[in-house]
Amino acid sequence: MTGGPQIVVIGAGAFGTALAAVTALEGRATVTLLGRDPALMADLRTDRFHDAALPGIPLPDALNFSHEPEVLAKADIVLFAMPSQAHADAAITYGPYLKADARVVTCAKGIDRATSHLLTEVLGEALPQHPIAVLSGPGFAADIAKGLPTAMVLAAGDLVEAEKLARTLSGPTFRLYASDDRIGVQLGGALKNVLAIACGIVEGMGLGESARAALIARGLAELSRFVEARGGTASAVRGLSGLGDLVLTATSHQSRNLRFGIALGRQGVTDPSSGALVEGAFTAAVAARLAEGLSIDMPITEAVAAIIDGRLDIRSAIDQLMRRPITTE
Amino acid sequence: MTGGPQIVVIGAGAFGTALAAVTALEGRATVTLLGRDPALMADLRTDRFHDAALPGIPLPDALNFSHEPEVLAKADIVLFAMPSQAHADAAITYGPYLKADARVVTCAKGIDRATSHLLTEVLGEALPQHPIAVLSGPGFAADIAKGLPTAMVLAAGDLVEAEKLARTLSGPTFRLYASDDRIGVQLGGALKNVLAIACGIVEGMGLGESARAALIARGLAELSRFVEARGGTASAVRGLSGLGDLVLTATSHQSRNLRFGIALGRQGVTDPSSGALVEGAFTAAVAARLAEGLSIDMPITEAVAAIIDGRLDIRSAIDQLMRRPITTE
Repeated sequence: MTGGPQIVVIGAGAFGTALAAVTALEGRATVTLLGRDPALMADLRTDRFHDAALPGIPLPDALNFSHEPEVLAKADIVLFAMPSQAHADAAITYGPYLKADARVVTCAKGIDRATSHLLTEVLGEALPQHPIAVLSGPGFAADIAKGLPTAMVLAAGDLVEAEKLARTLSGPTFRLYASDDRIGVQLGGALKNVLAIACGIVEGMGLGESARAALIARGLAELSRFVEARGGTASAVRGLSGLGDLVLTATSHQSRNLRFGIALGRQGVTDPSSGALVEGAFTAAVAARLAEGLSIDMPITEAVAAIIDGRLDIRSAIDQLMRRPITTE
Repeated sequence: MTGGPQIVVIGAGAFGTALAAVTALEGRATVTLLGRDPALMADLRTDRFHDAALPGIPLPDALNFSHEPEVLAKADIVLFAMPSQAHADAAITYGPYLKADARVVTCAKGIDRATSHLLTEVLGEALPQHPIAVLSGPGFAADIAKGLPTAMVLAAGDLVEAEKLARTLSGPTFRLYASDDRIGVQLGGALKNVLAIACGIVEGMGLGESARAALIARGLAELSRFVEARGGTASAVRGLSGLGDLVLTATSHQSRNLRFGIALGRQGVTDPSSGALVEGAFTAAVAARLAEGLSIDMPITEAVAAIIDGRLDIRSAIDQLMRRPITTE
C-alpha cells in the first residue's frame, strides 16, 4: 500500500488492466482494478497474469484487484475503461459509490449509439456533480502494459485540471499530454476508425503505400472539418488522439478496423455480419449522417459508409475520389 | 505527338521517369524526358522500360526521350527532377535553353547544403525571370509509374498559378492538390526524413507501434513549430507534403531514411559512413542548428542529430524524451 491519490480503474479488459498496471508501477498512487467477475479478480490477485487480455505480461505487485464497487468510496480518480456502449449503464451502476469529489475519466473511444452523444457527455449527464475527463490517443494495451514508451492525451474541462490529471497518471513509460478539448480528442479517437477501414480497403486491393499515405492525409483534412464544425479544435485533430491514433490504427495489423477494411478490399464485397463487431463500421454511418446535417464535405467517410451499406462498390468509390475537381489542400 | 502544353522532365532517375510517364499517359500534354546519358535515353526510346530505375514497369508510347537540352526551347512547363544537391548546377546548365515564359517546378525534397536555401529559392535566384513551383508529397516513383492512385501537392507563388499547374499535371491516377505555401510544402518534404530516422530507431529497438505513432504525432508538432517560424503554414504541415509524406516515409520499408534508423536502433551505434547516403541524416543537423537559431523547441530532431553525431546514445535520448515536463499538446 503506497500513499498518494487513490485510483480505481473500472473494467478488467485489456485496456483497463494495462492502464491500472502502468499507473500502479509508478508507486505514486494506490491503484485498484475493479472488475465484475469475482473469480477473475481473485485469479488476477493470485496469479499476477491476465492471460485472456494480456498474455505473458506480468502485472505489478502494487496493483490491487477487486470486484466490489465499494472500493470506489475512497477513489480520488476513477477511470471508466469498459466499452463505449457500456458507459451509460456503468455510470448508473457505479455512480452511487463515487466519492463526492471524485474525478471521472473515460478511456473508451466511441460514440454512444442510442443518443449519438460523446462519452464525456454520457457521463456528464449521469454524473453531473463530477468533473469528467477523457484519456485517448495511440496506445495498444499490450504496449502500455509491457512498459514500452507510450504517449496519449488527457483532456478535461479546463487545462489546469487536465494537467493535474496528466501528471498524476503519467509515468516513466506512459506519458500524458494535457488538453482542454474534450470534443476534438474524442472525435479523433472515434472517427479515426472509419479512416482505418478506408486504409484497409486500399491495402486489401494492393493500391500501394503512396495511396494509403494520401488517404491518411486527406482523411485527417476531413476529420478536421468535422471536429471544427462540432466545436473542437484542429490542434486536437493533428495531435496524438487524432493523427497519432489514426496512424497507429491505419498502419498496424493489430487494428481490427484495418483488418476489416483489408478483408473488404480483398473480397470487394461486404459481409455485414463481420462489420457489426468493428467500431468504425458503425461510426461511419453516424459520422456520414452528422456530416450531411452539418453540410460538411467528408468524401472518404461517406464512401466507407456507402461501401459498408452496399450502396457503392469499392472500385467506383475509388474512381469517384480520384475524379473530384482539383482543389486546394 | 499530342497537342496541349509541352512538358519536359529533366532527370531520368526513378522519380523523373515516373512523373514523365504518368503525365504522358493522359495524352493532354506532349511530354519529354530529358536525361544526360545519350545511350540510356536511346535505350528507353526503343525498349520502353527503365530497368535500373523502374524495373518491370512499361513506359507509355506517348512519352518522348531526349538527351538534348534544345528540347527545352518549346517547353511550357519544366520539371526539375534531379537530386536536391544537383539543382544549383542544373539551373545553370539548362537555364539558357528555357523558353522566356516557361514555368519551372522542382520535384526534389531537400535543402541546398551549400547555402541552406530551399530549392525554390535556389532556382529562383538562378532563374529570376521564371515562376518557380514545387511538387511534393507522398508518392513512391514505382507507385506513380504503375498508375496506382497517388495524391501530391503542387505549390506555387500564388494559388491561381498553382491550380493551373495542378490541373495540367494531374491525371486519373495522379492527383495534385494546389497550395500557395512553397515554404511549408518544401520544409515538410525535407524534415520528414529526420522524423523517419527517429521512427526507424524506435522500430529497430522494438519499442512498439504505439511509440512510433506517438513519435509521428509529436514529430509533426515540432515540424509545425519550425515551419511557422520560417513563414510557412501549419496547414501545409498537416497536409500531403508534411503529414502524408511523413506517414509514408516513417512506415514503409521502401524508405531509406527509415531503414537507416532501424539499423541505428538495432545496433545502438552509428556507422557515420552509412548516414552520408541518407538525406535525413544531413537534414537533422541543419534543422537542429536552424531551430536553435530560431529558439524553437525540436526535441526529436535534436535527439536524432545528436545520435548521428555520436553525442548521445539512443537509450539516453529516449529517456530524455519521456522525462520532459508534462505539457499541453
